[in-house]
Amino acid sequence: MFFEHALGEYREITTQALLDLIPKKGPPYLYDLVSVYPCRAGKGLRAALCFAACSALGGNPRQALNSAVAIELFHNAFLVHDDVQDDSDRRRGAPTLHAEHGVPIAVNVGNATNLLALRTLMENRGILGPRVSWQVVAETERMMRHSLEGQAVELAWIRDNVCRLDVKDYLHMCLKKTSWYSFIYPLRVGALIARGHLEKNQFCRFGWYLGAAFQIQDDILNLTGEYQKYGKEIGGDLWEGKRTLMLIHLLRSCSPQERRRIKDFLAQPRPEHVPAEIAWLYRLMVRRGSINYARRAARQLAGAALLEGLAAFRGIPDSEDKRFILEMVLYVVERDR
Amino acid sequence: MFFEHALGEYREITTQALLDLIPKKGPPYLYDLVSVYPCRAGKGLRAALCFAACSALGGNPRQALNSAVAIELFHNAFLVHDDVQDDSDRRRGAPTLHAEHGVPIAVNVGNATNLLALRTLMENRGILGPRVSWQVVAETERMMRHSLEGQAVELAWIRDNVCRLDVKDYLHMCLKKTSWYSFIYPLRVGALIARGHLEKNQFCRFGWYLGAAFQIQDDILNLTGEYQKYGKEIGGDLWEGKRTLMLIHLLRSCSPQERRRIKDFLAQPRPEHVPAEIAWLYRLMVRRGSINYARRAARQLAGAALLEGLAAFRGIPDSEDKRFILEMVLYVVERDR
Repeated sequence: MFFEHALGEYREITTQALLDLIPKKGPPYLYDLVSVYPCRAGKGLRAALCFAACSALGGNPRQALNSAVAIELFHNAFLVHDDVQDDSDRRRGAPTLHAEHGVPIAVNVGNATNLLALRTLMENRGILGPRVSWQVVAETERMMRHSLEGQAVELAWIRDNVCRLDVKDYLHMCLKKTSWYSFIYPLRVGALIARGHLEKNQFCRFGWYLGAAFQIQDDILNLTGEYQKYGKEIGGDLWEGKRTLMLIHLLRSCSPQERRRIKDFLAQPRPEHVPAEIAWLYRLMVRRGSINYARRAARQLAGAALLEGLAAFRGIPDSEDKRFILEMVLYVVERDR
Repeated sequence: MFFEHALGEYREITTQALLDLIPKKGPPYLYDLVSVYPCRAGKGLRAALCFAACSALGGNPRQALNSAVAIELFHNAFLVHDDVQDDSDRRRGAPTLHAEHGVPIAVNVGNATNLLALRTLMENRGILGPRVSWQVVAETERMMRHSLEGQAVELAWIRDNVCRLDVKDYLHMCLKKTSWYSFIYPLRVGALIARGHLEKNQFCRFGWYLGAAFQIQDDILNLTGEYQKYGKEIGGDLWEGKRTLMLIHLLRSCSPQERRRIKDFLAQPRPEHVPAEIAWLYRLMVRRGSINYARRAARQLAGAALLEGLAAFRGIPDSEDKRFILEMVLYVVERDR
């Protein structure tokens, strides 16, 4: 309850500030659509982490507001483009932006969302001074580089129908695609605002493991969750041929005949899949223990994240915000949305 | 000859520096594809304008190299996304990036190209100092805002099948979509580097008119050019239903029956068009004088640009770079590529 309550408070502050800074005027199908995903209440984890890291390390969370809002904007921009790239149907319980308005407009709205985030970071100059605001921009550049490279890794797996993958490949992809922008970056920006500088690789391990646990839980919910809570099409990852930890496990533990059949299935473009194949793949994952394997992996990574989190905050006085950050570890693997 | 020679020299410097800064390592389908469009020699107008404005105003063009490279990167990023948005087949004489690698990878490559541009601007800090490099980033934010809004205007016209447009609407769209990033922004950045500050709206009128003349000439080449030189599919704009000045003129000068038929044609998605309709539309543009009208408009705008250019450089000592900038006016309306 403590965690959800704190998360809700941070979410409210962020969403209000985010919606306030979206221009009210402009051509149709641009700023009006930038607010569509943010209005479908997300979890707000990333902004909350930035606020909490700033506070826990002795900073003034009001100084982190702009950066927290920018972090959520970058996240929403990423979702808009990611939905185009995966050709997903649903996001947060409603049609994806490109499903409703077409790919051309969605690409533009994603770009505009990124630009609004950058602009918000530029307004840090008057609040954080030129040196720290420049460093926040430098952290942002690094985060975006990792995210785009992680996205490229995943797209290349699908394009080249790569089936020989192991846990290490998966964790590397998670580090770049999920952990950096969702966990490492918000924590580092919060710390930078609080302290005016960062230690080398500060929060990188903690954020990596936390992000990997988060991503695996996300993949599990995509298979076994309830649409009402999860908000995306259940089984969507199977339709997309996404290389989840379950699929990687399955490809390594199935029979050679099954492997061939899976590989043929993955070679087909999404529109050619039929529901019976999807059902067959899902049942095989259950039978081969791939889903239970992923559940165990998520909990082990969460355990590793907790150890790293305790180490990262050793010597930092206890506070509600420190507690919030450490409790996030449990939240990411127990969440149902 | 003087103009082409100078343009070629600037292009060579820029292309070399641009290709040098693209990372050699990384996941497949990312940085390797960032260099695809830049390797298909473009004109390099934008970088050349930045160098020339810096030089003509007494600056050191070597200090403008990073910014000139970033300008070309932003341009290439824009082309990659624009080709996705228009679903164009060809760019600079070869398949578009998404036609060859799919929309998901092209969206990512466009994003990575933008990010490399931003990173290049961040490296200005050691060359131009913190104040001027921050101002260059601020000019960049403003340029991107105009470009995205211009793109949104054009996408909305197609999405809502808007047919009641006049020259004013077209020129406003040109200002935002073409003029700002191709002409106003490079000129302003060059001036900022040379002088350390900008006058309010410096080069805005000159760049606007020049960009509008450039865009109309581009639309004319798209209809009447030679593929070998122009490098894009001839007639592509007709297939896309793009609101060119010719189409706007035609819609205002045709009969009510023709207007209804054009409107029905434009309401169909691109794959449903047939060559006979395209040919009909083209012949109608010839018959109603729409192409000659556009040619006249491009030359009038070029004349207006020349007057503004002379005013903008009044009091600035004559130099090859000043001459280069003023000769660009003639080049944009006489070019065949």
